[in-house]
Amino acid sequence: MNRILVLNGPNLNLLGTREPQIYGYTTMDDVIEDLQSRFSGIEIEYFQSNCEGEIIDKLHAVGFDSQCIGVALNAGAYTHTSLAIADAIAAIKTPVVELHISNVHARESIRHTSLISPVCRGVIAGFGVDSYRLAIEAILNF
Amino acid sequence: MNRILVLNGPNLNLLGTREPQIYGYTTMDDVIEDLQSRFSGIEIEYFQSNCEGEIIDKLHAVGFDSQCIGVALNAGAYTHTSLAIADAIAAIKTPVVELHISNVHARESIRHTSLISPVCRGVIAGFGVDSYRLAIEAILNF
Amino acid sequence: MNRILVLNGPNLNLLGTREPQIYGYTTMDDVIEDLQSRFSGIEIEYFQSNCEGEIIDKLHAVGFDSQCIGVALNAGAYTHTSLAIADAIAAIKTPVVELHISNVHARESIRHTSLISPVCRGVIAGFGVDSYRLAIEAILNF
Amino acid sequence: MNRILVLNGPNLNLLGTREPQIYGYTTMDDVIEDLQSRFSGIEIEYFQSNCEGEIIDKLHAVGFDSQCIGVALNAGAYTHTSLAIADAIAAIKTPVVELHISNVHARESIRHTSLISPVCRGVIAGFGVDSYRLAIEAILNF
Amino acid sequence: MNRILVLNGPNLNLLGTREPQIYGYTTMDDVIEDLQSRFSGIEIEYFQSNCEGEIIDKLHAVGFDSQCIGVALNAGAYTHTSLAIADAIAAIKTPVVELHISNVHARESIRHTSLISPVCRGVIAGFGVDSYRLAIEAILNF
Amino acid sequence: MNRILVLNGPNLNLLGTREPQIYGYTTMDDVIEDLQSRFSGIEIEYFQSNCEGEIIDKLHAVGFDSQCIGVALNAGAYTHTSLAIADAIAAIKTPVVELHISNVHARESIRHTSLISPVCRGVIAGFGVDSYRLAIEAILNF
Amino acid sequence: MNRILVLNGPNLNLLGTREPQIYGYTTMDDVIEDLQSRFSGIEIEYFQSNCEGEIIDKLHAVGFDSQCIGVALNAGAYTHTSLAIADAIAAIKTPVVELHISNVHARESIRHTSLISPVCRGVIAGFGVDSYRLAIEAILNF
Amino acid sequence: MNRILVLNGPNLNLLGTREPQIYGYTTMDDVIEDLQSRFSGIEIEYFQSNCEGEIIDKLHAVGFDSQCIGVALNAGAYTHTSLAIADAIAAIKTPVVELHISNVHARESIRHTSLISPVCRGVIAGFGVDSYRLAIEAILNF
Amino acid sequence: MNRILVLNGPNLNLLGTREPQIYGYTTMDDVIEDLQSRFSGIEIEYFQSNCEGEIIDKLHAVGFDSQCIGVALNAGAYTHTSLAIADAIAAIKTPVVELHISNVHARESIRHTSLISPVCRGVIAGFGVDSYRLAIEAILNF
Amino acid sequence: MNRILVLNGPNLNLLGTREPQIYGYTTMDDVIEDLQSRFSGIEIEYFQSNCEGEIIDKLHAVGFDSQCIGVALNAGAYTHTSLAIADAIAAIKTPVVELHISNVHARESIRHTSLISPVCRGVIAGFGVDSYRLAIEAILNF
Amino acid sequence: MNRILVLNGPNLNLLGTREPQIYGYTTMDDVIEDLQSRFSGIEIEYFQSNCEGEIIDKLHAVGFDSQCIGVALNAGAYTHTSLAIADAIAAIKTPVVELHISNVHARESIRHTSLISPVCRGVIAGFGVDSYRLAIEAILNF
Amino acid sequence: MNRILVLNGPNLNLLGTREPQIYGYTTMDDVIEDLQSRFSGIEIEYFQSNCEGEIIDKLHAVGFDSQCIGVALNAGAYTHTSLAIADAIAAIKTPVVELHISNVHARESIRHTSLISPVCRGVIAGFGVDSYRLAIEAILNF
Repeated sequence: MNRILVLNGPNLNLLGTREPQIYGYTTMDDVIEDLQSRFSGIEIEYFQSNCEGEIIDKLHAVGFDSQCIGVALNAGAYTHTSLAIADAIAAIKTPVVELHISNVHARESIRHTSLISPVCRGVIAGFGVDSYRLAIEAILNF
Repeated sequence: MNRILVLNGPNLNLLGTREPQIYGYTTMDDVIEDLQSRFSGIEIEYFQSNCEGEIIDKLHAVGFDSQCIGVALNAGAYTHTSLAIADAIAAIKTPVVELHISNVHARESIRHTSLISPVCRGVIAGFGVDSYRLAIEAILNF
Repeated sequence: MNRILVLNGPNLNLLGTREPQIYGYTTMDDVIEDLQSRFSGIEIEYFQSNCEGEIIDKLHAVGFDSQCIGVALNAGAYTHTSLAIADAIAAIKTPVVELHISNVHARESIRHTSLISPVCRGVIAGFGVDSYRLAIEAILNF
Repeated sequence: MNRILVLNGPNLNLLGTREPQIYGYTTMDDVIEDLQSRFSGIEIEYFQSNCEGEIIDKLHAVGFDSQCIGVALNAGAYTHTSLAIADAIAAIKTPVVELHISNVHARESIRHTSLISPVCRGVIAGFGVDSYRLAIEAILNF
Repeated sequence: MNRILVLNGPNLNLLGTREPQIYGYTTMDDVIEDLQSRFSGIEIEYFQSNCEGEIIDKLHAVGFDSQCIGVALNAGAYTHTSLAIADAIAAIKTPVVELHISNVHARESIRHTSLISPVCRGVIAGFGVDSYRLAIEAILNF
Repeated sequence: MNRILVLNGPNLNLLGTREPQIYGYTTMDDVIEDLQSRFSGIEIEYFQSNCEGEIIDKLHAVGFDSQCIGVALNAGAYTHTSLAIADAIAAIKTPVVELHISNVHARESIRHTSLISPVCRGVIAGFGVDSYRLAIEAILNF
Repeated sequence: MNRILVLNGPNLNLLGTREPQIYGYTTMDDVIEDLQSRFSGIEIEYFQSNCEGEIIDKLHAVGFDSQCIGVALNAGAYTHTSLAIADAIAAIKTPVVELHISNVHARESIRHTSLISPVCRGVIAGFGVDSYRLAIEAILNF
Repeated sequence: MNRILVLNGPNLNLLGTREPQIYGYTTMDDVIEDLQSRFSGIEIEYFQSNCEGEIIDKLHAVGFDSQCIGVALNAGAYTHTSLAIADAIAAIKTPVVELHISNVHARESIRHTSLISPVCRGVIAGFGVDSYRLAIEAILNF
Repeated sequence: MNRILVLNGPNLNLLGTREPQIYGYTTMDDVIEDLQSRFSGIEIEYFQSNCEGEIIDKLHAVGFDSQCIGVALNAGAYTHTSLAIADAIAAIKTPVVELHISNVHARESIRHTSLISPVCRGVIAGFGVDSYRLAIEAILNF
Repeated sequence: MNRILVLNGPNLNLLGTREPQIYGYTTMDDVIEDLQSRFSGIEIEYFQSNCEGEIIDKLHAVGFDSQCIGVALNAGAYTHTSLAIADAIAAIKTPVVELHISNVHARESIRHTSLISPVCRGVIAGFGVDSYRLAIEAILNF
Repeated sequence: MNRILVLNGPNLNLLGTREPQIYGYTTMDDVIEDLQSRFSGIEIEYFQSNCEGEIIDKLHAVGFDSQCIGVALNAGAYTHTSLAIADAIAAIKTPVVELHISNVHARESIRHTSLISPVCRGVIAGFGVDSYRLAIEAILNF
Repeated sequence: MNRILVLNGPNLNLLGTREPQIYGYTTMDDVIEDLQSRFSGIEIEYFQSNCEGEIIDKLHAVGFDSQCIGVALNAGAYTHTSLAIADAIAAIKTPVVELHISNVHARESIRHTSLISPVCRGVIAGFGVDSYRLAIEAILNF
């Protein structure tokens, strides 16, 4: 069975815990469960790390695996500071979709520049946790 | 019946004609027809103009119309130069999703800054004409 | 009878409609009516367009007409992006006063730069719709 | 009787003396006299200093005085360099209108940035000494 | 018979009227008449608009017409602000020559950057109305 | 008895008066009284001026006085604009600690650059009026 | 018993070893021991890592623990490059004080910008290892 | 007989030799020969140097010679780095036309700024070696 | 007898006191005495203030006095921050020479920009206290 | 026996795997084996990590070990983003040579700035995997 | 007899010829003759070149010659573009004074930055040809 | 016999003379002699000039000579200012290695940008005169 990796960067483990009055009470467990039930023909793998190096390791691990048909990557703050993750995305074969829960362009200016956008297939931002579903929709259409 | 406006900016009338070896032979007529058949429960309205002012006029026209539940806006080059369109989006009530066929972040630097992103609900870029479908998917989930 | 043109740029047709809890319920019709009654010795002409080209056309039309003794111009977002309107102001003979309802200097940085200020006679900003009256006061004193 | 303070910054004591072929022969005494006669229902107080600190002292002195209904401030060069005056304006209760005799936007680029605009109610620039009258007109309408 | 389009942007309709002591009394009618008589083997078509969108529409109209062998484009102020016109030039097949009456590089810095130069075949600037003749000379040699 | 100078710049005389709902009702008199009672073995001298020149004069006066073992300097807005105060700090012998009531780094960008930090011994910012106590704690440890 | 976390970033494990003629022979063990003896009513916890991800993990671990009343964070070079640590500080509930041993503002310009300052309660820099004591003094006063 | 100087800067001696598959096999000898035969009523003088100083010397030599009616200058890379050549052009009486074989505006950004454009009569760029002919056409029309 | 004003800005009262091992033991009294003895046919007036406003006041006082044939101005740090002093220099009739003891161009970058240079007759920097003598030499030659 | 550490940063584990048609089929194992056979009198140690923190840990481990006479460091993307690695290099005693396989200066502009160059002994870039050999040649000559 | 070199850069050979209505009819021959007669106890050597390399050669030639006690250098446009001349000045032993005829700070912004100022002893600018005399006055006082 | 050109730019003729306490007493003659003895199978040619144009001439002379297998270029200050040398390197066939004696990245910021790096094969910097040997090592491996 084909697989899609949902890959989350720093602080996203706090989803549902961190300022729930703003970000809501949905946790990543809820999100993944919901995605798996919607897309039953595909395996949804989930990985999160606060460490830039472990995100690169994971991208290398799935990036040459022909069963993994895409990565839905929410790199969090590393989106704006990690050229190393960008290089990893450029190096692997599996296509990567960049996604963000919030509309990063409506936030502080440091979040307006993405180092990874140029090497991702496409970008989805601002739809709350629905951004994950849209990223998978996009990957399934590649 | 509810309605979604697909609103295209400058030069997008050439889709399918302009450098088809690069952009493909799909025209906007094909795109709209495909969208209408996929999303049969909703009316897909289409409007294109090369004129900044007419795009603003159209946003005003649908922006206070409660039957129009969203705008999928590909503002083309005006994305990067039109503060007036941004102001129109901010002024109206209908939510707007910014979309791009190409991955604008992988192109020249002038295309890395979007004046309209901060006032749109979200952004979808880089998925070819499938970006239109994803924008509608997003709107339907609001 | 001498004439003053009140010339409004993009989105100002929404005044009174757009976020009235912030901008108030006064429409441009109310504003013009009030101005006409205050300044009964002069004809107040009103024109609004969302199209940069039509604003230029209008400036050309009145700019060589000796009966039009001044233009009170609220160019909206085009203030910050239209060098073409600036060139039109520089080319005509009628003096132009730049005005803004809000204090543009207290808003986002893109609104701190006006392309038209250097070719206008003066600038009035931040007094709400009273900025229109002050602009006419200024023109009458030229 | 209510009072409006006309507050002038550095070098404005030279008005009428400094390059009169350019700036004219009108002195600030003439200006204040003319304003007092035009606005007879209000007391026009005048203060000028070349010292940033004294301008701040004056703003503090009138800024909590309920009889002073507004300040017409021509901060001269301090407009562009004094964050301390900006902080004083933000701290007091009396509304302040920023004014300039010349069109600062048509001069050297250092004069295009005003540190005080964001904390003033509004800005009037470029109408010669008539800018003082317009500022008072604006204050009387608050 | 082959055709060359002379395409003028904003404010160029005022040529001969606007500050004639500086720009001279030659109008665009005079210029076109002179060009047609010099280049009798080719049809000189003329179009001017103050509207960015209409300039794009015109470029689309001639850009796929094999009888139009070139466009001599004086985009006026849009040269420096219109990415949409640049995209139109890049999209069409007819070669475009950018021209300016004045030496734009000797004017204010905003006029030193041309958004359309990178997609034009070449640039001619600073020769007064003779720039139109030189652009046609260039096109005829393609 | 050794002495520490608490030196305050522009607008700090308003503390407790200016927007008390934000800044609180504590005045500098309260602050100094509290400091004097906490640090009974040392004389706490207090000086405030809205004038850049008087702050420099004061720094010169204490800067070569061996009984003054340190200056706790809240230069207010002059922190960001006064190279002359920085030069005074560099010229004197008494060590100076820079302090701020608010977290200047969380405010507008002009407040992110301090001209005096490079010549101060250290910086304390963001602890409300407790920043004064911490500065004295630091000085006593030199 | 309440607890304060002293959290050190990259290279601070070398303190006392690295260029002791400049930085002195005091190690972090000495510092923590001294702090624990000074502040006997509170537990001083110490953690250091050269890995950005582990610093984030630690902030998450203590950030929702009501016994930890504050974090004294010396993020070293990550102060200037880690938006992810800034996001972690913003996400947790425990207040964080930014501290530096050296006066970062007197060093190279890259060290003048702190990504974490805007989300910390306050900043203490330049007092040598005494900065740790001052940070704890500040936390105890919250 | 009147004379026009064709003046070439660094590396242009390689024309026809350097990457002929890109720049073609035409040498400057071919270009000059062709120009001389086209413009038989005028003497075409040719000079090339890789040395900035020799180009200035040559401009001085012809710049006060009334028989030399113009200079067609391709300053190569010195276009973008030599203020001294710009000063020489400004100092002499003979008019100078700036020309480039390639469209410099479509190349790297360092080639977008010309130090000499402001002091040349006009600029011609992007027409291959035909740029030399167009420059002479322009000079003959002065 | 004609007069020249030697006008010193902030911190220059410390000359001879401040870091004498670097700046030497010469005081301004010594300098003025030496200048007066060298230039016996002219009266050397001396004024120093740490206050920007007082420097402006002094410039106004001498600037319209026909016996004062020049000002030798060492504005210290105000050179780089005071647009108000620059305006005062531009407003008065007496010519002003800018001077610096140290070579400001070899110091930190903030000292590379002088706001007053454009309105001074000339600039002398880097010759130690001999810069004062050279400035007077220059004034005597006007 | 003396030792040289070859230290590789992120993504370099993919060498020989990643786009071999561009980067070749040589792996780091091949490179190290070749280096060991060329430099038989010295032990070549190899370490690679995708984690910034582990690279710092490794630098600390060898940096005070007198048998390690040098580090040949290819920090990959961390070259351009890691101030923490730069601080580690500055802190240790073992000299470090920065190397790159590709000519980083001919790639995107973000790769033109190296944070680690100022603290390395020297830099070698652009010679393919031969850069490793040259770095060792350089170290052996220290 | 001691010697001072007056060293002139590009275009200064035209002095007296180039726009004499602006720059006057004084030639460098006149200037040198006048200087030699004023300073009869010292030999005034004169050298001018339009070539950056020859200026460097000359600096090397005199820079280690103990009889040459100083260089009065007017580097013309090379002041702003030649790091190589700056390196030559830094390398030699003879002190160099930078001078300019015009007030370079009152001209275009490219002339506000001097690459050679940091390595010269001092700078004299804006006194017309009297700047040469003042530079020699300064050298004689070293 | 094959040949490698060692090509030195401005001021490098002073090596061994200029500040020998810093740069050492080794002259370029010593360096070349040492290189020739190390690499006996190849002819080492040496050329130095302070003139940008002569460096370009030399590159042209060897750049199409098949016996010259490489150029080891230390362009000195021209590295940072000469686009013309960069164009010459791009135009010739012989590969060029950029080298520097000092670590240019640890010096002033103007030396951090190399105009020639993008067109050289590789870069070697910071190894003292050993950089010449390493450049030749690199060339021999092409």
